[in-house]
Amino acid sequence: MTAVAPIFRDRVVIVGGGFGGLACARGLDGADVDVLLLDARNYHLFTPLLYQVATALLDPSDIAYPFRTVFRRSHNVRFRQARVTGVDFDARRVEVAGGEPIPYDTLVLATGSGNAYFGNPALAERTIGMKSLDEALRLRNHVLSCLERAAQATDPAERSRWLTFVVVGGGPTGVEYTGALAELLGLVLGRDFPELPPGSARVVLVEGADRLLGPFHPRLGAYAADALRSRGVEVLLSTLVREATDDAAVLASGGETSTIGARTIVWSAGVGPTDPLPDKEPDGAAVARSRTRRLEVDEHLRIRPGVYAIGDVASVRSGDTGTGAELPMLSPPAMQEGRYVAQTIRSGGEPVRPFRYTDKGTMATIGRRAAVAQVGPLRLRGFPGWITWLVVHLYYLIGFRNRATVLASWGWDYLRRDRPIRLIVRSRYDPVVAALVPDEP
Amino acid sequence: MTAVAPIFRDRVVIVGGGFGGLACARGLDGADVDVLLLDARNYHLFTPLLYQVATALLDPSDIAYPFRTVFRRSHNVRFRQARVTGVDFDARRVEVAGGEPIPYDTLVLATGSGNAYFGNPALAERTIGMKSLDEALRLRNHVLSCLERAAQATDPAERSRWLTFVVVGGGPTGVEYTGALAELLGLVLGRDFPELPPGSARVVLVEGADRLLGPFHPRLGAYAADALRSRGVEVLLSTLVREATDDAAVLASGGETSTIGARTIVWSAGVGPTDPLPDKEPDGAAVARSRTRRLEVDEHLRIRPGVYAIGDVASVRSGDTGTGAELPMLSPPAMQEGRYVAQTIRSGGEPVRPFRYTDKGTMATIGRRAAVAQVGPLRLRGFPGWITWLVVHLYYLIGFRNRATVLASWGWDYLRRDRPIRLIVRSRYDPVVAALVPDEP
Repeated sequence: MTAVAPIFRDRVVIVGGGFGGLACARGLDGADVDVLLLDARNYHLFTPLLYQVATALLDPSDIAYPFRTVFRRSHNVRFRQARVTGVDFDARRVEVAGGEPIPYDTLVLATGSGNAYFGNPALAERTIGMKSLDEALRLRNHVLSCLERAAQATDPAERSRWLTFVVVGGGPTGVEYTGALAELLGLVLGRDFPELPPGSARVVLVEGADRLLGPFHPRLGAYAADALRSRGVEVLLSTLVREATDDAAVLASGGETSTIGARTIVWSAGVGPTDPLPDKEPDGAAVARSRTRRLEVDEHLRIRPGVYAIGDVASVRSGDTGTGAELPMLSPPAMQEGRYVAQTIRSGGEPVRPFRYTDKGTMATIGRRAAVAQVGPLRLRGFPGWITWLVVHLYYLIGFRNRATVLASWGWDYLRRDRPIRLIVRSRYDPVVAALVPDEP
Repeated sequence: MTAVAPIFRDRVVIVGGGFGGLACARGLDGADVDVLLLDARNYHLFTPLLYQVATALLDPSDIAYPFRTVFRRSHNVRFRQARVTGVDFDARRVEVAGGEPIPYDTLVLATGSGNAYFGNPALAERTIGMKSLDEALRLRNHVLSCLERAAQATDPAERSRWLTFVVVGGGPTGVEYTGALAELLGLVLGRDFPELPPGSARVVLVEGADRLLGPFHPRLGAYAADALRSRGVEVLLSTLVREATDDAAVLASGGETSTIGARTIVWSAGVGPTDPLPDKEPDGAAVARSRTRRLEVDEHLRIRPGVYAIGDVASVRSGDTGTGAELPMLSPPAMQEGRYVAQTIRSGGEPVRPFRYTDKGTMATIGRRAAVAQVGPLRLRGFPGWITWLVVHLYYLIGFRNRATVLASWGWDYLRRDRPIRLIVRSRYDPVVAALVPDEP
């Protein structure tokens, strides 16, 4: 049995078990401190594959792993499922919803990011995001329900609205989801839905900048646009979504507006940090934030003595001197920051060297045998990029079982050209799904 | 591509794609009629394994199969996702929620059963059923959330209520779920939850009759009770649940009442038919129903010319003369009835012989290497019963992929003594889950 930890050890509280928080907790596993990991969910989510849950290729359990299983053999890392609502820095306690405050000696804030809508609440209400398992499942059920509704529609205009899918945002998430959605529609129209001829669906990717995949080399962005267009996707660059309603998206491009009738608008155009700190501290001083509202940290990733911020929630600069651009909200910086903070805590809180980010590359997949990967000066695309993407994602996926089942699903998809999972399960969650499957009386 | 069916053929409408409706639709695949299968869900559910989804062993997609995939290659069977709200026998049309009425020449009612609470609405509200994928997922999330709450509870009485699980009903579903729940708790207490010592949970199975597994031979019922007790389950026979509240179940046994503090009460004590017919026909005549409220059918499973009822919704008698006891609400009678009706329709609606049920056996599993199976005079239990159970259930599971992934999950469970899926995903559905994981603002 696990021994009860002695009470005189320092207590480290990590808030958030995404890539940053999990890397930090793993780095502290076995160290001479007590670690309490807090998360509102009971599982770590492998977010890079969320779009595959949303497009009926993977099951939720393929990309999620319970924290308690990760730390089952640990003697000093514990998990508690709780949503943190605030931090009392003076009393050194974190406040949690519906529970007693939790004391800490060292605090690591790793609460990640959520959808950001640039102050337009209608966009939040009328679009479906891609940041959580809940959202991915909602999106999957919604899209499948739209196909069932289209199959029943008698009015051609109405049918076309059920069959039009607008994706907002051409970053890695938007590109990956769009590619996978186009493949899903290609697989089921005509075959599973004889009422809906192949090619009757319309997928539109809307990007505000003049190219896709901003963080990548422009040539890879152009390749992604070509690859999507060859799969039947309409790619609209330098275009913004002004408005979203239940059955249309209003677009603006070069001073002109246009409307696309669509029952589905997917939001991947903006994310923002979701930390539990207020904008003003109790003494009236502002919490220091970057222009993107991430928490300002020193070169040792501290926002104050004994309190660290890592991952999407922290504003960390790139470059050898730590003065370059803000690091992107992606898993590699978060993991490196988490490991760095764990190292610092292991050495008694005395940082030996400032944090420096090592860029090991970025990648995104567009579909069957098509992906882009950028590793230093190396730029891969097409089949080589796709194989690289497969290997790296399988390698980073937690747990033998997840790897095996994901590999099996990918193999099925590749060989059979079929998506295994097309169940519309949750009827009360999305208005379209609910209307299609009214609850039993 | 599939040819458009000629319009002069007879149109068969099958309402409900459970075991009966699916068997009927498959029996009509390729026949000289147009078949439209209607179901409120877009998938066939392998309900005998629902308790394994509820106990974190299988994923929803392992036991559900989309209708459109089943009939992808069919030229005459179509699917439409719709909830049927009534039937106009004179106009020969079925009415659907939110859509135009659908005409039929021949109608097959196969709408199955739902939870029945014997007129006690509080039981419906305070207990969790086991009839649908939605309920199984809710139950899984609920039980896992109770463990998280127990781990956080400071008051011992409160903690014990989070750790007490009452299952009402000792039929096959109740016995199978109870056995699987006891195994799940044995696997995670102490190991995943070091805060909760092994044996700190309490599982109570409450049955109104004086033995478990009513449809089986009494000796198998006694074996099941012994096997559950040896797994730490309290089995209470001749006991009824009078009342259910948020944190207690009130039991009555032999004139005495007692209260068990529990946050979880699972309902498997009663099911009733869920057909879309009213109790009175428009002309004032009563719809003929049996004592259990199932639809009375003639020996050719008709409730009137051209309208058949099969499965849980139909009152069909056993025995060589069709005058025995009502057939149980299980999949084997439903499947035989579905195939019989398909045969009758194929022969132009002229039934050649009355329907007779052939009992091929019943089985239920209690846990690792323990099951009961009754095949004619043969009664298996323990390991032989368990192996029989495994083979039969894998055989009847639809689709190669489902079989492969279910086998993989069972192998994992057996060899690793671990449950792969312990995610608490849906936060808005169950009050306990919602309180543990408050929605983001």
